[in-house]
Amino acid sequence: MFDDRLEKVNDECGVFGIYAPGRSVAELIYLGLFSLQHRGQEGCGIAVSEGNFINHYKNLGMVTDVFTQHTLGTLEGYLGIGHVRYSTSGQSKTQQNTQPIVARYQHGQIALAHNGSLTNAAELRNHLMERGSLFHTTIDSEQIVGLIASHGQDDMEQAMLKAMIDLKGSYSLVIMTENKLYAVRDPYGNRPLCLGKFGENGYVVASESCALDAIGATFLRDVEPGEIVTIDEDGLHSTKLFNHAQNALCIFEFIYIARPDSNIDGINVNKARRLMGRELAKEAPLDVDVVISVPDSGTTAAIGYAEESGIPFTQGILKNRYTGRSFIQPTQEMREQMVKLKLNPIRDALEGKRIAVVDDSIVRGTTSRKLVKLLREYGAKEVHMLISAPPVKYPCFYGVDTGNPEELIASKMDVEQICEYIGADSLHYLSMEGILKAVEWSGCGFCTACLNGAYPMGIPNYNNVKEALE
Amino acid sequence: MFDDRLEKVNDECGVFGIYAPGRSVAELIYLGLFSLQHRGQEGCGIAVSEGNFINHYKNLGMVTDVFTQHTLGTLEGYLGIGHVRYSTSGQSKTQQNTQPIVARYQHGQIALAHNGSLTNAAELRNHLMERGSLFHTTIDSEQIVGLIASHGQDDMEQAMLKAMIDLKGSYSLVIMTENKLYAVRDPYGNRPLCLGKFGENGYVVASESCALDAIGATFLRDVEPGEIVTIDEDGLHSTKLFNHAQNALCIFEFIYIARPDSNIDGINVNKARRLMGRELAKEAPLDVDVVISVPDSGTTAAIGYAEESGIPFTQGILKNRYTGRSFIQPTQEMREQMVKLKLNPIRDALEGKRIAVVDDSIVRGTTSRKLVKLLREYGAKEVHMLISAPPVKYPCFYGVDTGNPEELIASKMDVEQICEYIGADSLHYLSMEGILKAVEWSGCGFCTACLNGAYPMGIPNYNNVKEALE
Amino acid sequence: MFDDRLEKVNDECGVFGIYAPGRSVAELIYLGLFSLQHRGQEGCGIAVSEGNFINHYKNLGMVTDVFTQHTLGTLEGYLGIGHVRYSTSGQSKTQQNTQPIVARYQHGQIALAHNGSLTNAAELRNHLMERGSLFHTTIDSEQIVGLIASHGQDDMEQAMLKAMIDLKGSYSLVIMTENKLYAVRDPYGNRPLCLGKFGENGYVVASESCALDAIGATFLRDVEPGEIVTIDEDGLHSTKLFNHAQNALCIFEFIYIARPDSNIDGINVNKARRLMGRELAKEAPLDVDVVISVPDSGTTAAIGYAEESGIPFTQGILKNRYTGRSFIQPTQEMREQMVKLKLNPIRDALEGKRIAVVDDSIVRGTTSRKLVKLLREYGAKEVHMLISAPPVKYPCFYGVDTGNPEELIASKMDVEQICEYIGADSLHYLSMEGILKAVEWSGCGFCTACLNGAYPMGIPNYNNVKEALE
Amino acid sequence: MFDDRLEKVNDECGVFGIYAPGRSVAELIYLGLFSLQHRGQEGCGIAVSEGNFINHYKNLGMVTDVFTQHTLGTLEGYLGIGHVRYSTSGQSKTQQNTQPIVARYQHGQIALAHNGSLTNAAELRNHLMERGSLFHTTIDSEQIVGLIASHGQDDMEQAMLKAMIDLKGSYSLVIMTENKLYAVRDPYGNRPLCLGKFGENGYVVASESCALDAIGATFLRDVEPGEIVTIDEDGLHSTKLFNHAQNALCIFEFIYIARPDSNIDGINVNKARRLMGRELAKEAPLDVDVVISVPDSGTTAAIGYAEESGIPFTQGILKNRYTGRSFIQPTQEMREQMVKLKLNPIRDALEGKRIAVVDDSIVRGTTSRKLVKLLREYGAKEVHMLISAPPVKYPCFYGVDTGNPEELIASKMDVEQICEYIGADSLHYLSMEGILKAVEWSGCGFCTACLNGAYPMGIPNYNNVKEALE
Repeated sequence: MFDDRLEKVNDECGVFGIYAPGRSVAELIYLGLFSLQHRGQEGCGIAVSEGNFINHYKNLGMVTDVFTQHTLGTLEGYLGIGHVRYSTSGQSKTQQNTQPIVARYQHGQIALAHNGSLTNAAELRNHLMERGSLFHTTIDSEQIVGLIASHGQDDMEQAMLKAMIDLKGSYSLVIMTENKLYAVRDPYGNRPLCLGKFGENGYVVASESCALDAIGATFLRDVEPGEIVTIDEDGLHSTKLFNHAQNALCIFEFIYIARPDSNIDGINVNKARRLMGRELAKEAPLDVDVVISVPDSGTTAAIGYAEESGIPFTQGILKNRYTGRSFIQPTQEMREQMVKLKLNPIRDALEGKRIAVVDDSIVRGTTSRKLVKLLREYGAKEVHMLISAPPVKYPCFYGVDTGNPEELIASKMDVEQICEYIGADSLHYLSMEGILKAVEWSGCGFCTACLNGAYPMGIPNYNNVKEALE
Repeated sequence: MFDDRLEKVNDECGVFGIYAPGRSVAELIYLGLFSLQHRGQEGCGIAVSEGNFINHYKNLGMVTDVFTQHTLGTLEGYLGIGHVRYSTSGQSKTQQNTQPIVARYQHGQIALAHNGSLTNAAELRNHLMERGSLFHTTIDSEQIVGLIASHGQDDMEQAMLKAMIDLKGSYSLVIMTENKLYAVRDPYGNRPLCLGKFGENGYVVASESCALDAIGATFLRDVEPGEIVTIDEDGLHSTKLFNHAQNALCIFEFIYIARPDSNIDGINVNKARRLMGRELAKEAPLDVDVVISVPDSGTTAAIGYAEESGIPFTQGILKNRYTGRSFIQPTQEMREQMVKLKLNPIRDALEGKRIAVVDDSIVRGTTSRKLVKLLREYGAKEVHMLISAPPVKYPCFYGVDTGNPEELIASKMDVEQICEYIGADSLHYLSMEGILKAVEWSGCGFCTACLNGAYPMGIPNYNNVKEALE
Repeated sequence: MFDDRLEKVNDECGVFGIYAPGRSVAELIYLGLFSLQHRGQEGCGIAVSEGNFINHYKNLGMVTDVFTQHTLGTLEGYLGIGHVRYSTSGQSKTQQNTQPIVARYQHGQIALAHNGSLTNAAELRNHLMERGSLFHTTIDSEQIVGLIASHGQDDMEQAMLKAMIDLKGSYSLVIMTENKLYAVRDPYGNRPLCLGKFGENGYVVASESCALDAIGATFLRDVEPGEIVTIDEDGLHSTKLFNHAQNALCIFEFIYIARPDSNIDGINVNKARRLMGRELAKEAPLDVDVVISVPDSGTTAAIGYAEESGIPFTQGILKNRYTGRSFIQPTQEMREQMVKLKLNPIRDALEGKRIAVVDDSIVRGTTSRKLVKLLREYGAKEVHMLISAPPVKYPCFYGVDTGNPEELIASKMDVEQICEYIGADSLHYLSMEGILKAVEWSGCGFCTACLNGAYPMGIPNYNNVKEALE
Repeated sequence: MFDDRLEKVNDECGVFGIYAPGRSVAELIYLGLFSLQHRGQEGCGIAVSEGNFINHYKNLGMVTDVFTQHTLGTLEGYLGIGHVRYSTSGQSKTQQNTQPIVARYQHGQIALAHNGSLTNAAELRNHLMERGSLFHTTIDSEQIVGLIASHGQDDMEQAMLKAMIDLKGSYSLVIMTENKLYAVRDPYGNRPLCLGKFGENGYVVASESCALDAIGATFLRDVEPGEIVTIDEDGLHSTKLFNHAQNALCIFEFIYIARPDSNIDGINVNKARRLMGRELAKEAPLDVDVVISVPDSGTTAAIGYAEESGIPFTQGILKNRYTGRSFIQPTQEMREQMVKLKLNPIRDALEGKRIAVVDDSIVRGTTSRKLVKLLREYGAKEVHMLISAPPVKYPCFYGVDTGNPEELIASKMDVEQICEYIGADSLHYLSMEGILKAVEWSGCGFCTACLNGAYPMGIPNYNNVKEALE
């Protein structure tokens, strides 16, 4: 029933921008995108300029597959932007829908890379179409470019300020013209975006600070909610139109999405996850022999749980490092084996033991169910499942694919039922209070819509969306 | 100096459209495009619809390389259009610039394939950009889509009529919406476009009639200059806004571009070329032993020359049938051999003979020069060059790539000088009167701008263009 | 029933070798193979050496597809060999079966490229296997390498002489070790092979002289039947073991296979085909309006017919120059259209005329039947089919794929029946006397086994082969 | 100086075989190879048979890249073998050198997959060449096939027994004929190989037990040193010729190569590594705040160290899970950043702490040096390096690539010097006694040649090898 929404907005992405006079930036963008690969594996692209013309290349595939030495060699320029894209919807998996979007408008060229999701995408599209605009993709990011161009303004900063009045939803943007770089973050700061210094007179923008580290840039600060940062030959300057009381950074960045070595709005992701594990240990003390994790995302919280509880952490399950590649379609008979190909339990660590296994979330429950069964097969005497966040009950409209809401197990069952379904001896979620305690020291506000249904930026105006949430 | 023009308009293309209720048309379009491959080898694309959604696939490459059984299988629909594209400009060789252009506008989807070249492309682009429009390609065909969409009209026919008032230059178009097919020809009928009947209730549109033959369709008639043909569930109907005194079909279609088995505006291409050869025999009788041709394009005229003169035609040069594929960059040393790889003289046919060799045109003169030398090496006693058309002296602004005007040998040298340059014993071009005699019986008017500089549709408004023509 | 034979030996190939001190030969071999492409389009390969190590690259595909600038760049050497391969058998279409075969034996490396087919391939394979040899391919050429190596001799010339005593069937070979080049032709000279001079101190060997022309080499002479030519730092020298009374050059090289601009054993192919056409005109004079050809292979004979008969030659059918590429599998319904995609009749040349159409052979008759029907559809009043050779009635065991013998129409029907089957007004084959007259002036002997069943080198020792010929 | 050796033997591989009447095994082999991917990422291949003909496909690349649904679909059979290959030598990176080797010999077809390295490869090759054999690859595995075929025996088991008398060095083999499967392990049991039961009447052979788990097979036992296991329609039976006092399983399988969830000769890899960590804690107690690992290979030992020492384990470095793909060649300037792209330190876990970091080995020392520097940059107050094995000082001749012996830092420097070179506060290797204690409980003998220079199976007979070891 959510097809329209699912088709258009189910994407989590990563963006990167760099302005480095005297340098060739294509390879730096490549390294930056490589370190943001976890934010999107479906497609990627790079646009660069030497000051007069924006050249770009983009395609479906991973960064290392899409870009070759040869392709990068054709992308000469001292400023540029890049994008990695994720999407679950089949239809949207086309080259057209990859980013950056590069177009020519009244005052020259523009390239844009977007992380986030608009809630008024359809309205904006209709509005622009009524003015005679054409659309070449099915992604909402094209509306942003259209909106900017529609103001017919030579000054991109002014055009962007106007556009922001109309844009609803989440967006962290890197935008470039032939000779300027812009970084824009929505008024709620929902998706992360940070600034770095590169060399003498260069600047970098990236979804996560780990991309700054990757190229040897120094972290400056996060782009502020509602801020437009302009980088050009006069250096960096900032404009801000909005003053919001509420700051709503996506809590899921800390639960699952971001890389542990990144810092977002003053919070280190590894620390946040470790604290979630510690809170969980306070809320759900267990009498078990070892704490293990579902790698890789559950590991940090598991270590936090072990630290707080004093129960030893050990490696009970290995994650196969060759997954994530194209795999053959298994026969029905082989499908049951698939979880074993990705997650390899170690009998030595499990046999005869009472196990606490930490994961970051349960979506549909089928994988957890198989995993619990597998752990028992490998000798675990007891299997207690610990989730380092509250249950995901509500769909995200701001750029994270939480899957089909009808399939979210926590929106249909209570904790006891889920525990029974997955076959664990016990199941504990971190409470809402617990997770906020793990991040509250930052002083930042959070969007927890997927956990409690409080949508700070509203929801799309589709009847079926409203019904579904009632 | 003509770079701007060269970058944007240097393309000759082929278009194809079909409306065939109850049939799956992708394969038929494939066959149609295959038979139009000579009109463009750089890229191709197909768009189809089952009535509700336009699906498409396009890429750089030949028809047989771009489309596989699998790709065609994903293109389901009973109506569709296709395009083959040629371009000499490096920059334009990108997937973005392939056609059909498929976009979404206020009233749904639109797909368009264009053969021709606008002379007011830049003005139209500026006009549309001032309204806030974005452009994703660097081809003028996108302006046509933008212009149609800008009128915001639900009725495509009405929108097209309005657009035609603004469009200047040459265009043969096939356009489709989700459930209708349109064929449009510019008011001068500069590029060919014909209509066919397919099966019980189907219709076909194609640049040349040979594409109708390829799928077993029956020729109905040519689309008339200035005509808009609409094909939908109510059958075929026609609208015409313009009544022009002058009809200006491109003469070069008969000299070189079109396939000999095609008929265009009542003229069979083979017949036209044979008559050009006959006229040439009247204008330039020679005392030679045999008539040979530079294959394939000179062959028909050579046979006409032989028929009229009574001098026997023979095959003196073979054309290697494996050229036209990607070839390695030869070393300087090997470059001299290259003409021999493409054109293989046969000593048996040449040795000791006085030869008349017929070609359709001389562009830069370097190939002709090598060829004359080669024919002498293979034993020809005399080599007389015959060109079945007048000298190409002026650039084409209507969709034919006549190369860099500065390199056109006939714009710099007179016939005697060219003869000396290429090293022939004599050189004869067909006169303007002669070529018109070869096609005049059709009653059709012609554009001969590249031969005499008379541009019936005007020229682009670039200063450098004007200067160059002065 | 001939499956075993068909699987293994059905190939016609082209070979090329060059020894050019101080030169890098990979690109020259590429050009040579390109000009031999008509002898095999299934796969190709190049092996080169700088004096110490043979490096090679081979794959399925056309020369221009298999070799890129990069691949050629990795092939450094002043001597080398190349091969183009054709095979109709599905099973044999694997990379393993491409040539040159490159192997290491007791005295170093050996690379071999073979045109022809052994009649005792199975016996040789068994013999070698009994000695413990392994085979990695299913092509008979591997037996030749095995046989050479089995003699354990350091002197390749001596080893080759010994091998030739055991080899039965046809073979034109180019062989190389790390620093020597060899050219070998079977004692009957069944497949062509010629020698050229390249630059100061270089030599070239090729299946056809057109490959010498392609790189600017000068024709020296043909390799003689039974001759082994050795080319090394001491120049060129020759050994011959056999003295045969009978010389049996494949007549089909002149009928169809070789390129018209090639000379083989003193005969120019174009001249031979023209004389076949002339003989045909003497044997089968017709009262028709024009002579046309089935291009490209029938064209030279058609011109010969026209010369002798005085009836004008014209171009009545065009051959699509984009065929020969991978094509989609047409639906049943479209299959009838396929011949039209390859052969494009020109109404202007056919309408209302009595036509004589010249082809080189009729294999199964289905294509001829469709063609005759097509010519009538395009307005031909009468269609007389002329074949510039006698009927092909017997399978070739010496390297030419004559198709499934059971499907050879001439082995099942007489001329009258064939004429009726293909629907022509009349059908005339050139007589055996006629074809020999067209080539007899060369003083060379010919293998005409496919025409009259006289197998000069015997046939494979399979029961089914014998039965089939009885 | 070790070029000859390096060219030929530097490979570590994985093998897999299955015999499963009534099943199609290609997909099962695919899953098996996928779970052995860590043993070789350079190339892979699968051979299968339906009882009469061995069909195969192999290429350079990872399992998921080489095999598609389509390729697997063409590989029908109820028995088959597979291979994953690793090689560092550039020259050997060719498709020819991938396995299984498939050849035809006197008594039919044979396919072979080999893990290990022969020490008398050159002698065997010369011996076979003197008999007239040809070699198509540069890998020693081809000699094994040649040796088997050279005995001309119909009974493969007998031929294999004879071959084993001549084979010197390490080899775990899976071999198949058209209808039988064989598993062979060298008399020292140097490389692992185990047997499993699959379904009712099926059997599996694999380098590691994790491949049995992957397809749902049950572990039966390890193939014994010197054993030949034959699997055919009569089930499984075993032959053994040799009785060796010494059993010499490669210790490096436990240090680094094998997957932690595998069991080899009665030893669980994870347990062995954990015990190495525990022994290290006893030998080298440290006063530090946390224990971290260089992931993934150092993690298990680090956890063992933490368990024994009571010092908490934490995740201080993340391993990027997208490495291992083709990466662009970084510019000189960027090269310093490369270690950061693969290993991502987490400031939160390191800042202000005294760190013990556990790795499995130091080869050249350059990466360790960069890592120590990086850890300090991320705030580590002290960095103590712990290696869970003794120093690697000697080259391996039995199938493990230990790199250029001249570059092995431990063969040039003592521990103190290495510590200084890498810039650590202290450096501790596990002692030889310690590592043997970690595995001695299995009762198995080990090859520790790379650690102490005691080569149980001798070394290749090259002068340069001997010199290098002196």
